[in-house]
Amino acid sequence: METPPPLLAGIEAGGTKYVCSVAHDPREPLLETRFPTGDPGETLAQAVNFFREAAATHGPIAAMGIGTFGPAGIDPNATDYGTILTTPKQGWTGYGVVASIRGGLGNGFPIAFETDVNAAVLAESAYGAARGKRHVAYITIGTGIGGGFLTDGRLLHGRMHPEIGHLLVPDLDAAYGKALNICPFHASCLEGRASGPAIAARWGVPGHELPDDHPAWELEAKYLAVGCVNLTSAWSPDLIILGGGVSQKRGLIERVRREFTALTGNYWSLPDPEDYLRLPELDQQAGIVGSLLLAQQMLARQLVTPIG
Amino acid sequence: METPPPLLAGIEAGGTKYVCSVAHDPREPLLETRFPTGDPGETLAQAVNFFREAAATHGPIAAMGIGTFGPAGIDPNATDYGTILTTPKQGWTGYGVVASIRGGLGNGFPIAFETDVNAAVLAESAYGAARGKRHVAYITIGTGIGGGFLTDGRLLHGRMHPEIGHLLVPDLDAAYGKALNICPFHASCLEGRASGPAIAARWGVPGHELPDDHPAWELEAKYLAVGCVNLTSAWSPDLIILGGGVSQKRGLIERVRREFTALTGNYWSLPDPEDYLRLPELDQQAGIVGSLLLAQQMLARQLVTPIG
Repeated sequence: METPPPLLAGIEAGGTKYVCSVAHDPREPLLETRFPTGDPGETLAQAVNFFREAAATHGPIAAMGIGTFGPAGIDPNATDYGTILTTPKQGWTGYGVVASIRGGLGNGFPIAFETDVNAAVLAESAYGAARGKRHVAYITIGTGIGGGFLTDGRLLHGRMHPEIGHLLVPDLDAAYGKALNICPFHASCLEGRASGPAIAARWGVPGHELPDDHPAWELEAKYLAVGCVNLTSAWSPDLIILGGGVSQKRGLIERVRREFTALTGNYWSLPDPEDYLRLPELDQQAGIVGSLLLAQQMLARQLVTPIG
Repeated sequence: METPPPLLAGIEAGGTKYVCSVAHDPREPLLETRFPTGDPGETLAQAVNFFREAAATHGPIAAMGIGTFGPAGIDPNATDYGTILTTPKQGWTGYGVVASIRGGLGNGFPIAFETDVNAAVLAESAYGAARGKRHVAYITIGTGIGGGFLTDGRLLHGRMHPEIGHLLVPDLDAAYGKALNICPFHASCLEGRASGPAIAARWGVPGHELPDDHPAWELEAKYLAVGCVNLTSAWSPDLIILGGGVSQKRGLIERVRREFTALTGNYWSLPDPEDYLRLPELDQQAGIVGSLLLAQQMLARQLVTPIG
């Protein structure tokens, strides 16, 4: 009789919604639930309940991966590990996500705590737009702007995760008769200029209500192209995946490619823009699939018995 | 009788001068020479001659590290490995530095081929301003602007090395009644605005002739602070070391710290500016010491015998 494969648990812990899943194979969830991200105590209680019921049906959880909104304490050696750092999101600053899971489900399994973007870059690398690539950058453009970099299978971690939403960028608004930056911390940063809320504040309506040929998209493409040039300078990826709700706007990726080509001025010998700047392939699934992959990797590390 | 420690060879292959050294301990060169970087064939011939003579006196070379000016092909799996890529430097585009060393000295030892900035960050991490730090960024500001990032002992490599001189930055010239960017590829990049030649072109005299209280240094500090913010966003280092000739200007690092603090707006919880933005400690020695460290690391990897 074969031993059943270990049960993986994943949480896509987004700023708007939580998705919880269990699976043996990250691509094939056995059971999944999603609910709005509200008060942290209640949100984590809902997650704990889901996993208790899942374990009652499918057996004990072997490992859990969490891909969370940030900023987040992801260094296992730091005192703020497993928590949400300073965030405008009501009640979440300093909240211990990992501690809450452990409190509800016990200490019997390893937990990987990462950013949502790092989970997404793992998923796209394993099964999506970045299959077979060694150096993979992922930008998500939505309520905020975040990024992750996977190089030869390792996620880039410094003191904390990358925070590319706060890359300082040239002011391109003036040419459009505008002057908008919604970031309360920086005079002109990528998130302040080009996130979903920045688009809505600048043009007075949410992005999805603006027609495809509205000048908003030309300006948006220019800002995103600047971001892509700066990540090329700093990280030198094989490709950059543009995820998040804003990137899905029809025609936007083609505009970003054109602006990027104009900006780089052929300085670098890069792949063709169609191969270098790509949409995600897993789309809405990347977050939860990546969280399950985090659990799988965590387990693989635990199963390696050191020699001697 | 003890076996003598292996003989390490290092080349600091700068755009202006070549420094060649042999040592058992990277901090204690046994023999060193330096000469101007001229025609590539002649330059490498001088290096080969030095190492032949050094080997005749001190015994066979066990490993060599080369920290070169860039852009350079540093991926051992790529066809351009060991060469200088597209450069305005006469005669060097496509030149095979490693092939030239092998041709002159034979294939009997491992060679590590890296950027000069990566060699410097290794040296500062081992013996200098970044001792004991896990995530170390190094910027060099001189004829060009380059950068390197060492995280948990690994140098950041993507498709190629970082090229932070080409980070796009806001135009800060206008507030000084100027409009200067000397980069032929980009409208407003760090190197085009803030390298040594950019300072000289903007103010009409080389930086070292400008008094300490000249507005040039306020503007320079603002540009470098933008660069430091963007590396903080992308890499999240424990500290940033500002090397190269321009950084040595009296009072400049203090100005960069003030501008950096103003720009980041306390968004990140970072170390004090005095600890976060630092001058190098090894100064002129970092390049050659780092090249010898590269040789030492290369040798350590070769000496690890895989099990089974």
